[in-house]
Amino acid sequence: MSKIPPPLNPPRRTLLGPGPSDVAPSVLLAMAQPTLGHLDPAFLLVMDELALMLRQLFGTKNECTLPMSGTGSAGMETVFVNLLQPGDRALIGVNGVFGMRMAEVARRCGAEVVEVSGEWGRAFTPDDFTRAAAGQKFKLMALVHAETSTGVLQSMDGMRDVADACGALLAMDCVTSIGGIAVQVDQWGIDAAYAGSQKCLSCPPGLAPVTFSPRAADVIRARKTAVQSWYLDLNLILSYWGGERAYHHTAPINMLYALHEASRLALEEGLPEREKRHFKNGRALVAGLENLGLQHRVPESERLPQLTAIAIPEGIDDGTARSFLLNEFGIEIGGGLGPMKGNTWRIGLMGAASTPANVALCLAGISKLLEPR
Amino acid sequence: MSKIPPPLNPPRRTLLGPGPSDVAPSVLLAMAQPTLGHLDPAFLLVMDELALMLRQLFGTKNECTLPMSGTGSAGMETVFVNLLQPGDRALIGVNGVFGMRMAEVARRCGAEVVEVSGEWGRAFTPDDFTRAAAGQKFKLMALVHAETSTGVLQSMDGMRDVADACGALLAMDCVTSIGGIAVQVDQWGIDAAYAGSQKCLSCPPGLAPVTFSPRAADVIRARKTAVQSWYLDLNLILSYWGGERAYHHTAPINMLYALHEASRLALEEGLPEREKRHFKNGRALVAGLENLGLQHRVPESERLPQLTAIAIPEGIDDGTARSFLLNEFGIEIGGGLGPMKGNTWRIGLMGAASTPANVALCLAGISKLLEPR
Repeated sequence: MSKIPPPLNPPRRTLLGPGPSDVAPSVLLAMAQPTLGHLDPAFLLVMDELALMLRQLFGTKNECTLPMSGTGSAGMETVFVNLLQPGDRALIGVNGVFGMRMAEVARRCGAEVVEVSGEWGRAFTPDDFTRAAAGQKFKLMALVHAETSTGVLQSMDGMRDVADACGALLAMDCVTSIGGIAVQVDQWGIDAAYAGSQKCLSCPPGLAPVTFSPRAADVIRARKTAVQSWYLDLNLILSYWGGERAYHHTAPINMLYALHEASRLALEEGLPEREKRHFKNGRALVAGLENLGLQHRVPESERLPQLTAIAIPEGIDDGTARSFLLNEFGIEIGGGLGPMKGNTWRIGLMGAASTPANVALCLAGISKLLEPR
Repeated sequence: MSKIPPPLNPPRRTLLGPGPSDVAPSVLLAMAQPTLGHLDPAFLLVMDELALMLRQLFGTKNECTLPMSGTGSAGMETVFVNLLQPGDRALIGVNGVFGMRMAEVARRCGAEVVEVSGEWGRAFTPDDFTRAAAGQKFKLMALVHAETSTGVLQSMDGMRDVADACGALLAMDCVTSIGGIAVQVDQWGIDAAYAGSQKCLSCPPGLAPVTFSPRAADVIRARKTAVQSWYLDLNLILSYWGGERAYHHTAPINMLYALHEASRLALEEGLPEREKRHFKNGRALVAGLENLGLQHRVPESERLPQLTAIAIPEGIDDGTARSFLLNEFGIEIGGGLGPMKGNTWRIGLMGAASTPANVALCLAGISKLLEPR
């Protein structure tokens, strides 16, 4: 017997977790525009416009800048499978879930990984990498700009010099930073970066913008072994996104409409203005949480404005508390991961969700939650 | 200087190519519903409902049935990276682009591939596989149910017996068949199948439903080497889609809304009725094309009703002709691939696009095109 559920009727939430974030109405509407074919000249124009906007969001002139057809983790995998060949050495900063994931993905490419271990909730210094490198050479050095699992902002100051000393390409995870705070791929000397659509760009999840410097693109073109993932093989994909428009896989048309509109909104606001907004609302949230007696997990100078990691107060059960916020206020906040599971909340004010109204709503909800019952 | 393009305003097309196909309005609207978090209980319900519907679409009771977060080619890669380990032997039918792609993906998994070569535009017989197997054993045998590059319908009759004789798991590409014509994974003894959202399901591109038999799932669980793709690793992904709901990657929420609605529409129509509709409109198209003097590329008994491969008549330039249809009538049809490039058109009547009105429109456009000028 066939079982058919009723049509969807998702409840309205305010998404204040680590992503996805609230999506602007015009982005949802762009996504609902009629589907075009992936080789339609009208769609090729959308691709060109989108690539141009992604370059601005990444702060780069890199020709090789495009959205991969998967979520942020597919973007991560794209960087590692294309740049690493079996036996290559990679130096990877691990101070949260996404650093761990980078190391795991690199190992699955057959790379020899040296992990730079850092405390969860703290940023790295360039010296941390220099010490871990111990004078050896590496093909790739990688770190996370905005650690979604801990709320840490990683400064890129000095990292290019360390990579140069190791003879390494420099890769950066900016899934949670792009569209929220400054991302300056060219200025910082980044060779490869990947992002996600669903954090500060406030587009639904499903796309992973990536960018590669000319030098990194040369490394990919000069590979002696085939990229282990056919789906993520840039040597093939660039025939579609580049000049030839050769069919590789069917592009996720409507998701690309959404990212086009979300990118437009970010650039129309202006990236410096957008960053100011994220800092202003982030500070207001932290001040309010401190007023309620809550403790930040990250030292002030290393905090992401768009993602606040806060210690769950004694006597409050994580699951019960988050269910209360969701059911009573329609607010989603995130729990902790790894060593922060059960003792940390992650509160996002990302993209369209970074508003004074959401700061007030979140503080009202948490205040209610902390009332003695 | 920042360059910001205007908002999207895609032209209205009638998508009669090899996919994507026209998307029903309720599917576009479902996709535009507000985004939920990927761990929201309301979203977990959507996932459960969707998995239930995908099982019906695949004709299976397989517990391991879910949509992968990528397009159909990511579904293909999911099957091969999870089932194959380096050194495994795979027997793969190659009579079109997607068979070629399967062989390439399998080789990138480190497998030893034996190709069963077939003529483009023809189906295989079980004997073709038996002969190519030459009495040897294989880990996996794979073939394409509906070859999108040639318009060939591959019967699965007798294929399970061949796979058994080789000691092989049996995998099937049903990207272009699912939701259009009968797909009976359990009845045909298929161990692994992958599909796409954008063909006869008439959902935008971006998701790849997959299903694995209990035996295939056991093979994945018993692997001795890590799956080379972290993003497509079912041992990790099933912790999210299965009981534990452990975070792996952020699910493409709004795309999943769309597939939920598209699956609902297919099941509401009824799969046998839907298949009848595809056959009826496919036959009408072929009759009309034959009236215009055009030649089918595929023998009658091996034709897909949802995708018609037709020889381009002498004296007609492929690119000029397709641009004429697109610009004058808003009709997209597909060109040929591989040896069929420049000499073949592929006309799709898939899902929501399989209507008598579209048959009439397409024939009117092609008739106009063939008029002497």
